[in-house]
Amino acid sequence: WRVGEGWDVHALVPGRPLVLGGVTIPFDKGLLGHSDADALLHAITDALLGAAGLGDIGTWFPDHDERWRGADSARLLDEAAAQVRARGWQPVNVDATVVAQAPRLAPHRAAMQARIAATLALPPEAVNVKAKTAERLGPVGQGLAIEARAVVLLQRG
Amino acid sequence: WRVGEGWDVHALVPGRPLVLGGVTIPFDKGLLGHSDADALLHAITDALLGAAGLGDIGTWFPDHDERWRGADSARLLDEAAAQVRARGWQPVNVDATVVAQAPRLAPHRAAMQARIAATLALPPEAVNVKAKTAERLGPVGQGLAIEARAVVLLQRG
Amino acid sequence: WRVGEGWDVHALVPGRPLVLGGVTIPFDKGLLGHSDADALLHAITDALLGAAGLGDIGTWFPDHDERWRGADSARLLDEAAAQVRARGWQPVNVDATVVAQAPRLAPHRAAMQARIAATLALPPEAVNVKAKTAERLGPVGQGLAIEARAVVLLQRG
Ligand SMILES: [Mg+2]
Ligand SMILES: [Mg+2]
Ligand SMILES: [Mg+2]
Repeated sequence: WRVGEGWDVHALVPGRPLVLGGVTIPFDKGLLGHSDADALLHAITDALLGAAGLGDIGTWFPDHDERWRGADSARLLDEAAAQVRARGWQPVNVDATVVAQAPRLAPHRAAMQARIAATLALPPEAVNVKAKTAERLGPVGQGLAIEARAVVLLQRG
Repeated sequence: WRVGEGWDVHALVPGRPLVLGGVTIPFDKGLLGHSDADALLHAITDALLGAAGLGDIGTWFPDHDERWRGADSARLLDEAAAQVRARGWQPVNVDATVVAQAPRLAPHRAAMQARIAATLALPPEAVNVKAKTAERLGPVGQGLAIEARAVVLLQRG
Repeated sequence: WRVGEGWDVHALVPGRPLVLGGVTIPFDKGLLGHSDADALLHAITDALLGAAGLGDIGTWFPDHDERWRGADSARLLDEAAAQVRARGWQPVNVDATVVAQAPRLAPHRAAMQARIAATLALPPEAVNVKAKTAERLGPVGQGLAIEARAVVLLQRG
Protein backbone atom coordinates (compact mmCIF):
# COMPACT_ATOMS: atom_id res chain seq x y z
CA TRP A 1 0.00 0.00 0.00
CA ARG A 2 1.12 3.54 -0.71
CA VAL A 3 -0.36 6.96 0.03
CA GLY A 4 0.12 10.16 -1.98
CA GLU A 5 -0.97 13.77 -1.74
CA GLY A 6 -1.30 16.63 -4.19
CA TRP A 7 -2.05 20.33 -4.07
CA ASP A 8 -2.51 22.94 -6.77
CA VAL A 9 -3.62 26.53 -7.27
CA HIS A 10 -4.31 28.55 -10.40
CA ALA A 11 -5.31 32.18 -10.84
CA LEU A 12 -8.87 32.94 -12.01
CA VAL A 13 -8.82 35.31 -14.98
CA PRO A 14 -11.32 36.58 -17.56
CA GLY A 15 -11.30 35.09 -21.04
CA ARG A 16 -10.56 31.47 -20.15
CA PRO A 17 -12.95 28.52 -19.78
CA LEU A 18 -13.23 27.14 -16.24
CA VAL A 19 -12.32 23.45 -16.27
CA LEU A 20 -12.29 21.48 -13.01
CA GLY A 21 -12.20 17.73 -12.64
CA GLY A 22 -12.34 17.48 -16.41
CA VAL A 23 -15.68 19.28 -16.50
CA THR A 24 -16.27 22.67 -18.14
CA ILE A 25 -18.19 24.85 -15.69
CA PRO A 26 -20.17 27.94 -16.80
CA PHE A 27 -18.47 31.01 -15.29
CA ASP A 28 -17.19 34.38 -16.47
CA LYS A 29 -13.58 33.51 -15.59
CA GLY A 30 -11.29 30.54 -15.97
CA LEU A 31 -7.99 29.26 -14.62
CA LEU A 32 -4.72 30.58 -15.99
CA GLY A 33 -2.05 28.08 -17.01
CA HIS A 34 -0.17 26.37 -19.80
CA SER A 35 -2.59 23.44 -20.05
CA ASP A 36 -6.30 23.89 -19.30
CA ALA A 37 -5.10 24.68 -15.75
CA ASP A 38 -7.46 22.14 -14.16
CA ALA A 39 -6.23 22.49 -10.57
CA LEU A 40 -8.25 19.48 -9.38
CA LEU A 41 -6.88 17.06 -11.98
CA HIS A 42 -3.38 18.44 -11.37
CA ALA A 43 -3.65 17.79 -7.63
CA ILE A 44 -4.89 14.24 -8.28
CA THR A 45 -2.15 13.63 -10.87
CA ASP A 46 0.48 14.78 -8.37
CA ALA A 47 -0.99 12.55 -5.65
CA LEU A 48 -0.88 9.51 -7.96
CA LEU A 49 2.67 10.17 -9.10
CA GLY A 50 3.72 10.92 -5.54
CA ALA A 51 2.26 7.74 -4.08
CA ALA A 52 4.11 5.67 -6.69
CA GLY A 53 7.38 7.54 -6.12
CA LEU A 54 7.31 8.92 -9.65
CA GLY A 55 8.14 12.56 -8.98
CA ASP A 56 5.67 15.26 -9.90
CA ILE A 57 3.51 16.67 -12.67
CA GLY A 58 6.19 19.21 -13.56
CA THR A 59 8.71 16.45 -14.27
CA TRP A 60 6.38 14.48 -16.53
CA PHE A 61 4.54 17.35 -18.21
CA PRO A 62 6.85 20.39 -18.31
CA ASP A 63 4.93 23.61 -18.76
CA HIS A 64 7.28 24.75 -21.54
CA ASP A 65 6.37 21.66 -23.59
CA GLU A 66 4.25 22.55 -26.64
CA ARG A 67 2.48 19.17 -26.39
CA TRP A 68 0.65 20.29 -23.25
CA ARG A 69 -0.30 23.85 -24.34
CA GLY A 70 -4.03 24.15 -23.70
CA ALA A 71 -4.11 20.38 -23.09
CA ASP A 72 -7.05 18.59 -21.51
CA SER A 73 -5.54 17.70 -18.14
CA ALA A 74 -7.43 14.39 -18.23
CA ARG A 75 -4.74 13.34 -20.75
CA LEU A 76 -2.09 14.09 -18.13
CA LEU A 77 -4.00 12.18 -15.46
CA ASP A 78 -4.50 9.25 -17.82
CA GLU A 79 -0.78 9.15 -18.68
CA ALA A 80 0.23 9.43 -15.00
CA ALA A 81 -2.12 6.55 -14.11
CA ALA A 82 -0.60 4.44 -16.91
CA GLN A 83 2.90 5.08 -15.49
CA VAL A 84 1.70 4.17 -12.00
CA ARG A 85 0.12 0.90 -13.25
CA ALA A 86 3.22 0.08 -15.30
CA ARG A 87 5.13 -0.05 -12.00
CA GLY A 88 2.64 -2.56 -10.59
CA TRP A 89 0.47 -0.18 -8.54
CA GLN A 90 -3.33 0.07 -8.71
CA PRO A 91 -5.23 3.15 -7.56
CA VAL A 92 -7.66 2.18 -4.78
CA ASN A 93 -9.40 5.48 -4.09
CA VAL A 94 -9.09 9.21 -4.60
CA ASP A 95 -10.42 11.89 -2.29
CA ALA A 96 -10.09 15.57 -3.13
CA THR A 97 -11.31 19.05 -2.20
CA VAL A 98 -11.75 22.02 -4.51
CA VAL A 99 -11.77 25.42 -2.80
CA ALA A 100 -13.46 28.20 -4.75
CA GLN A 101 -15.34 31.27 -3.58
CA ALA A 102 -17.37 31.17 -6.80
CA PRO A 103 -18.98 29.64 -8.77
CA ARG A 104 -20.87 27.10 -6.66
CA LEU A 105 -19.25 23.77 -7.43
CA ALA A 106 -21.64 21.44 -5.59
CA PRO A 107 -23.88 21.01 -8.67
CA HIS A 108 -20.81 19.79 -10.61
CA ARG A 109 -19.39 17.35 -8.05
CA ALA A 110 -21.03 14.26 -9.52
CA ALA A 111 -19.88 15.04 -13.06
CA MET A 112 -16.30 15.65 -11.87
CA GLN A 113 -16.31 12.38 -9.94
CA ALA A 114 -17.62 10.48 -12.96
CA ARG A 115 -15.02 11.98 -15.30
CA ILE A 116 -12.15 11.24 -12.88
CA ALA A 117 -13.37 7.70 -12.20
CA ALA A 118 -13.65 7.01 -15.94
CA THR A 119 -10.16 8.40 -16.58
CA LEU A 120 -8.68 6.26 -13.81
CA ALA A 121 -10.83 3.18 -14.61
CA LEU A 122 -12.07 3.20 -11.01
CA PRO A 123 -15.57 2.40 -9.77
CA PRO A 124 -17.56 5.62 -9.17
CA GLU A 125 -17.62 5.16 -5.38
CA ALA A 126 -13.80 5.16 -5.28
CA VAL A 127 -13.57 8.79 -6.39
CA ASN A 128 -14.82 11.57 -4.13
CA VAL A 129 -14.74 15.31 -4.79
CA LYS A 130 -15.60 17.80 -2.07
CA ALA A 131 -16.33 21.49 -2.64
CA LYS A 132 -15.78 24.41 -0.25
CA THR A 133 -15.41 28.15 -0.20
CA ALA A 134 -12.47 29.89 1.47
CA GLU A 135 -14.86 32.00 3.59
CA ARG A 136 -13.76 35.18 1.72
CA LEU A 137 -10.21 34.78 3.12
CA GLY A 138 -6.98 34.97 1.11
CA PRO A 139 -6.58 34.91 -2.69
CA VAL A 140 -9.09 32.05 -3.08
CA GLY A 141 -11.60 33.77 -0.81
CA GLN A 142 -11.23 37.00 -2.80
CA GLY A 143 -12.09 35.14 -5.98
CA LEU A 144 -8.61 35.52 -7.45
CA ALA A 145 -7.77 31.82 -7.56
CA ILE A 146 -9.03 28.26 -7.15
CA GLU A 147 -7.18 25.69 -5.08
CA ALA A 148 -7.39 21.89 -4.97
CA ARG A 149 -5.99 19.17 -2.72
CA ALA A 150 -6.09 15.39 -3.08
CA VAL A 151 -5.02 12.14 -1.48
CA VAL A 152 -4.70 8.79 -3.21
CA LEU A 153 -4.27 5.23 -1.95
CA LEU A 154 -2.48 2.63 -4.10
CA GLN A 155 -2.12 -1.10 -3.72
CA ARG A 156 0.08 -3.70 -5.40
CA GLY A 157 -1.55 -5.79 -8.10
CA TRP B 1 -8.66 0.31 2.85
CA ARG B 2 -9.57 3.85 1.94
CA VAL B 3 -7.93 7.22 2.57
CA GLY B 4 -9.66 10.59 2.89
CA GLU B 5 -8.65 14.20 3.41
CA GLY B 6 -10.38 17.29 4.68
CA TRP B 7 -9.62 21.00 4.94
CA ASP B 8 -11.52 23.90 6.46
CA VAL B 9 -11.14 27.54 7.38
CA HIS B 10 -13.34 29.91 9.34
CA ALA B 11 -12.96 33.59 10.14
CA LEU B 12 -12.14 34.60 13.73
CA VAL B 13 -14.54 37.26 14.97
CA PRO B 14 -15.44 38.89 18.30
CA GLY B 15 -18.56 37.77 20.10
CA ARG B 16 -18.43 34.07 19.34
CA PRO B 17 -17.13 31.17 21.48
CA LEU B 18 -14.03 29.43 20.09
CA VAL B 19 -14.79 25.74 19.61
CA LEU B 20 -12.14 23.44 18.14
CA GLY B 21 -12.13 19.67 18.20
CA GLY B 22 -15.34 19.83 20.19
CA VAL B 23 -13.62 21.76 22.99
CA THR B 24 -14.49 25.32 24.01
CA ILE B 25 -11.25 27.28 24.30
CA PRO B 26 -10.99 30.53 26.29
CA PHE B 27 -10.31 33.37 23.83
CA ASP B 28 -11.72 36.79 23.02
CA LYS B 29 -12.83 35.70 19.54
CA GLY B 30 -14.53 32.72 17.99
CA LEU B 31 -15.11 31.19 14.58
CA LEU B 32 -17.82 32.53 12.30
CA GLY B 33 -20.23 30.08 10.70
CA HIS B 34 -23.69 28.59 10.60
CA SER B 35 -22.92 25.78 13.07
CA ASP B 36 -20.38 26.29 15.87
CA ALA B 37 -17.85 26.66 13.00
CA ASP B 38 -15.50 24.06 14.48
CA ALA B 39 -13.00 23.97 11.61
CA LEU B 40 -11.18 20.94 13.03
CA LEU B 41 -14.29 18.76 13.32
CA HIS B 42 -15.42 19.95 9.88
CA ALA B 43 -12.08 18.89 8.31
CA ILE B 44 -12.30 15.48 9.99
CA THR B 45 -15.95 15.07 8.96
CA ASP B 46 -15.03 15.85 5.35
CA ALA B 47 -12.10 13.40 5.47
CA LEU B 48 -14.37 10.61 6.77
CA LEU B 49 -17.09 11.27 4.20
CA GLY B 50 -14.48 11.60 1.48
CA ALA B 51 -12.73 8.32 2.28
CA ALA B 52 -16.06 6.49 2.14
CA GLY B 53 -17.06 8.17 -1.13
CA LEU B 54 -19.97 9.93 0.56
CA GLY B 55 -19.53 13.43 -0.79
CA ASP B 56 -18.88 16.30 1.57
CA ILE B 57 -20.10 18.06 4.69
CA GLY B 58 -22.02 20.60 2.62
CA THR B 59 -24.08 17.84 1.01
CA TRP B 60 -25.02 16.21 4.30
CA PHE B 61 -25.35 19.29 6.50
CA PRO B 62 -26.35 22.25 4.28
CA ASP B 63 -25.53 25.57 5.90
CA HIS B 64 -29.01 26.92 5.15
CA ASP B 65 -30.55 24.08 7.19
CA GLU B 66 -32.06 25.35 10.45
CA ARG B 67 -31.23 22.03 12.14
CA TRP B 68 -27.52 22.90 12.11
CA ARG B 69 -27.70 26.56 13.15
CA GLY B 70 -25.29 26.92 16.05
CA ALA B 71 -25.00 23.13 16.14
CA ASP B 72 -22.30 21.29 18.05
CA SER B 73 -20.22 19.99 15.16
CA ALA B 74 -19.62 16.78 17.12
CA ARG B 75 -23.20 15.91 16.12
CA LEU B 76 -22.21 16.29 12.46
CA LEU B 77 -19.09 14.16 12.96
CA ASP B 78 -21.09 11.52 14.78
CA GLU B 79 -23.71 11.41 12.02
CA ALA B 80 -21.02 11.23 9.30
CA ALA B 81 -19.29 8.36 11.13
CA ALA B 82 -22.62 6.52 11.36
CA GLN B 83 -23.09 6.87 7.59
CA VAL B 84 -19.54 5.64 6.98
CA ARG B 85 -20.08 2.60 9.22
CA ALA B 86 -23.47 1.89 7.63
CA ARG B 87 -21.57 1.34 4.34
CA GLY B 88 -19.30 -1.22 6.01
CA TRP B 89 -16.27 0.99 6.68
CA GLN B 90 -14.51 1.39 10.03
CA PRO B 91 -12.34 4.41 10.87
CA VAL B 92 -8.80 3.23 11.67
CA ASN B 93 -7.08 6.49 12.55
CA VAL B 94 -7.40 10.24 12.22
CA ASP B 95 -4.54 12.72 12.02
CA ALA B 96 -5.16 16.45 11.85
CA THR B 97 -3.50 19.85 12.16
CA VAL B 98 -5.04 23.07 13.43
CA VAL B 99 -3.30 26.25 12.31
CA ALA B 100 -3.93 29.29 14.50
CA GLN B 101 -1.76 32.28 15.31
CA ALA B 102 -3.53 32.59 18.67
CA PRO B 103 -4.52 31.33 21.15
CA ARG B 104 -1.94 28.65 21.96
CA LEU B 105 -3.68 25.37 21.22
CA ALA B 106 -1.06 22.94 22.57
CA PRO B 107 -2.64 22.91 26.06
CA HIS B 108 -5.94 21.81 24.47
CA ARG B 109 -4.62 19.07 22.16
CA ALA B 110 -5.29 16.21 24.56
CA ALA B 111 -8.87 17.31 25.27
CA MET B 112 -9.59 17.67 21.55
CA GLN B 113 -8.17 14.21 20.86
CA ALA B 114 -10.25 12.68 23.64
CA ARG B 115 -13.46 14.34 22.42
CA ILE B 116 -12.86 13.25 18.80
CA ALA B 117 -11.92 9.69 19.81
CA ALA B 118 -15.06 9.42 21.96
CA THR B 119 -17.26 10.75 19.14
CA LEU B 120 -15.76 8.27 16.67
CA ALA B 121 -15.61 5.38 19.18
CA LEU B 122 -11.89 5.05 18.48
CA PRO B 123 -9.12 4.25 20.98
CA PRO B 124 -7.36 7.45 22.11
CA GLU B 125 -4.11 6.59 20.34
CA ALA B 126 -5.92 6.45 16.98
CA VAL B 127 -6.73 10.17 17.04
CA ASN B 128 -3.97 12.74 16.76
CA VAL B 129 -4.29 16.53 16.71
CA LYS B 130 -1.33 18.74 15.90
CA ALA B 131 -1.16 22.50 16.50
CA LYS B 132 0.83 25.12 14.61
CA THR B 133 0.98 28.83 13.95
CA ALA B 134 1.08 30.27 10.44
CA GLU B 135 4.25 32.23 11.28
CA ARG B 136 2.32 35.53 11.00
CA LEU B 137 1.72 34.87 7.27
CA GLY B 138 -1.62 35.17 5.45
CA PRO B 139 -5.08 35.49 6.99
CA VAL B 140 -4.38 32.78 9.59
CA GLY B 141 -1.04 34.34 10.51
CA GLN B 142 -2.72 37.74 10.91
CA GLY B 143 -5.17 36.27 13.37
CA LEU B 144 -8.15 36.67 11.04
CA ALA B 145 -8.93 32.97 10.68
CA ILE B 146 -8.21 29.44 11.86
CA GLU B 147 -7.53 26.59 9.46
CA ALA B 148 -7.61 22.82 9.89
CA ARG B 149 -6.60 19.84 7.80
CA ALA B 150 -7.13 16.13 8.38
CA VAL B 151 -6.51 12.69 6.94
CA VAL B 152 -8.41 9.54 7.78
CA LEU B 153 -7.82 5.85 7.10
CA LEU B 154 -10.76 3.43 6.81
CA GLN B 155 -10.88 -0.35 6.63
CA ARG B 156 -13.62 -2.82 5.76
CA GLY B 157 -15.26 -4.52 8.69
CA TRP C 1 -1.86 0.60 8.91
CA ARG C 2 -1.92 4.25 9.84
CA VAL C 3 -1.94 7.47 7.85
CA GLY C 4 -0.54 10.85 8.90
CA GLU C 5 -0.34 14.35 7.48
CA GLY C 6 1.85 17.35 8.09
CA TRP C 7 1.99 20.98 6.99
CA ASP C 8 4.45 23.76 7.65
CA VAL C 9 5.33 27.28 6.57
CA HIS C 10 8.31 29.50 7.31
CA ALA C 11 9.07 33.07 6.28
CA LEU C 12 11.83 33.65 3.71
CA VAL C 13 14.30 36.25 4.96
CA PRO C 14 17.74 37.55 3.95
CA GLY C 15 20.80 36.35 5.85
CA ARG C 16 19.77 32.75 6.42
CA PRO C 17 20.77 29.61 4.49
CA LEU C 18 17.89 27.92 2.63
CA VAL C 19 17.58 24.32 3.83
CA LEU C 20 14.80 22.10 2.46
CA GLY C 21 14.57 18.35 2.75
CA GLY C 22 17.92 18.40 4.52
CA VAL C 23 19.60 19.96 1.48
CA THR C 24 21.18 23.43 1.43
CA ILE C 25 19.96 25.23 -1.67
CA PRO C 26 21.79 28.23 -3.15
CA PHE C 27 19.54 31.30 -2.76
CA ASP C 28 19.81 34.84 -1.44
CA LYS C 29 17.28 34.16 1.35
CA GLY C 30 16.56 31.42 3.83
CA LEU C 31 13.80 30.28 6.13
CA LEU C 32 13.29 31.94 9.50
CA GLY C 33 12.94 29.75 12.57
CA HIS C 34 14.47 28.40 15.74
CA SER C 35 16.00 25.34 14.08
CA ASP C 36 17.18 25.46 10.46
CA ALA C 37 13.48 26.04 9.68
CA ASP C 38 13.37 23.21 7.12
CA ALA C 39 9.63 23.34 6.38
CA LEU C 40 9.72 20.13 4.36
CA LEU C 41 11.37 18.04 7.08
CA HIS C 42 9.05 19.61 9.66
CA ALA C 43 5.95 18.62 7.64
CA ILE C 44 7.26 15.06 7.28
CA THR C 45 8.16 14.88 10.98
CA ASP C 46 4.64 16.00 11.90
CA ALA C 47 3.11 13.45 9.51
CA LEU C 48 5.16 10.63 11.07
CA LEU C 49 4.34 11.64 14.63
CA GLY C 50 0.72 12.16 13.70
CA ALA C 51 0.28 8.77 12.05
CA ALA C 52 1.68 7.08 15.15
CA GLY C 53 -0.50 9.13 17.51
CA LEU C 54 2.55 10.79 19.03
CA GLY C 55 1.43 14.41 19.04
CA ASP C 56 3.36 16.99 17.06
CA ILE C 57 6.78 18.44 16.42
CA GLY C 58 6.16 21.25 18.92
CA THR C 59 5.59 18.74 21.72
CA TRP C 60 8.78 16.82 21.05
CA PHE C 61 11.05 19.68 20.00
CA PRO C 62 9.87 22.87 21.72
CA ASP C 63 11.12 25.97 19.94
CA HIS C 64 12.30 27.50 23.19
CA ASP C 65 14.63 24.54 23.76
CA GLU C 66 18.29 25.51 23.34
CA ARG C 67 19.08 22.00 22.06
CA TRP C 68 17.24 22.71 18.80
CA ARG C 69 18.52 26.26 18.14
CA GLY C 70 19.84 26.23 14.58
CA ALA C 71 19.47 22.44 14.61
CA ASP C 72 19.67 20.32 11.47
CA SER C 73 16.02 19.26 11.21
CA ALA C 74 17.16 15.84 9.97
CA ARG C 75 18.02 15.21 13.64
CA LEU C 76 14.40 15.93 14.57
CA LEU C 77 13.12 13.68 11.80
CA ASP C 78 15.50 10.91 12.84
CA GLU C 79 14.40 11.18 16.47
CA ALA C 80 10.71 11.20 15.50
CA ALA C 81 11.21 8.10 13.34
CA ALA C 82 12.94 6.36 16.27
CA GLN C 83 9.95 7.12 18.51
CA VAL C 84 7.55 5.83 15.85
CA ARG C 85 9.54 2.59 15.45
CA ALA C 86 9.80 2.18 19.22
CA ARG C 87 5.97 1.91 19.25
CA GLY C 88 6.09 -0.89 16.68
CA TRP C 89 5.32 1.14 13.55
CA GLN C 90 7.35 1.12 10.34
CA PRO C 91 7.22 3.97 7.80
CA VAL C 92 6.05 2.58 4.44
CA ASN C 93 6.20 5.67 2.24
CA VAL C 94 6.35 9.44 2.37
CA ASP C 95 4.93 11.82 -0.21
CA ALA C 96 5.36 15.57 0.10
CA THR C 97 5.04 18.85 -1.77
CA VAL C 98 7.17 21.98 -1.33
CA VAL C 99 5.57 25.19 -2.55
CA ALA C 100 8.00 28.01 -3.34
CA GLN C 101 7.83 30.82 -5.86
CA ALA C 102 11.64 30.85 -6.02
CA PRO C 103 14.19 29.35 -6.29
CA ARG C 104 13.41 26.51 -8.70
CA LEU C 105 13.38 23.39 -6.54
CA ALA C 106 13.06 20.75 -9.27
CA PRO C 107 16.86 20.41 -9.62
CA HIS C 108 17.06 19.59 -5.89
CA ARG C 109 14.20 17.06 -5.68
CA ALA C 110 16.40 13.99 -6.05
CA ALA C 111 18.87 15.15 -3.39
CA MET C 112 16.04 15.92 -0.94
CA GLN C 113 14.46 12.51 -1.55
CA ALA C 114 17.80 10.77 -1.00
CA ARG C 115 18.47 12.65 2.24
CA ILE C 116 14.99 11.92 3.60
CA ALA C 117 15.13 8.25 2.58
CA ALA C 118 18.53 7.86 4.26
CA THR C 119 17.29 9.56 7.45
CA LEU C 120 14.23 7.31 7.57
CA ALA C 121 16.11 4.15 6.45
CA LEU C 122 13.60 3.78 3.60
CA PRO C 123 14.31 2.63 0.05
CA PRO C 124 14.67 5.63 -2.29
CA GLU C 125 11.43 4.86 -4.18
CA ALA C 126 9.44 5.12 -0.93
CA VAL C 127 10.16 8.85 -0.58
CA ASN C 128 8.73 11.33 -3.05
CA VAL C 129 9.13 15.11 -3.06
CA LYS C 130 7.14 17.29 -5.42
CA ALA C 131 7.84 20.96 -6.16
CA LYS C 132 5.41 23.70 -7.17
CA THR C 133 5.03 27.44 -7.27
CA ALA C 134 2.06 29.25 -5.74
CA GLU C 135 1.35 31.00 -9.08
CA ARG C 136 2.32 34.38 -7.54
CA LEU C 137 -0.63 34.13 -5.12
CA GLY C 138 -0.54 34.72 -1.36
CA PRO C 139 2.56 35.00 0.84
CA VAL C 140 4.25 32.01 -0.81
CA GLY C 141 3.49 33.35 -4.28
CA GLN C 142 4.90 36.75 -3.32
CA GLY C 143 8.17 35.12 -2.29
CA LEU C 144 7.67 35.87 1.41
CA ALA C 145 7.48 32.24 2.58
CA ILE C 146 7.87 28.59 1.65
CA GLU C 147 5.24 26.00 2.50
CA ALA C 148 5.37 22.20 2.67
CA ARG C 149 2.83 19.43 3.07
CA ALA C 150 3.32 15.69 3.54
CA VAL C 151 1.52 12.39 4.00
CA VAL C 152 2.98 9.25 5.50
CA LEU C 153 1.81 5.64 5.63
CA LEU C 154 2.86 3.36 8.51
CA GLN C 155 2.49 -0.36 9.02
CA ARG C 156 2.91 -2.65 12.02
CA GLY C 157 6.14 -4.63 12.10
MG1 LIG D 1 -1.53 23.13 -12.05
MG1 LIG E 1 -16.54 24.61 8.23
MG1 LIG F 1 8.55 24.47 11.08
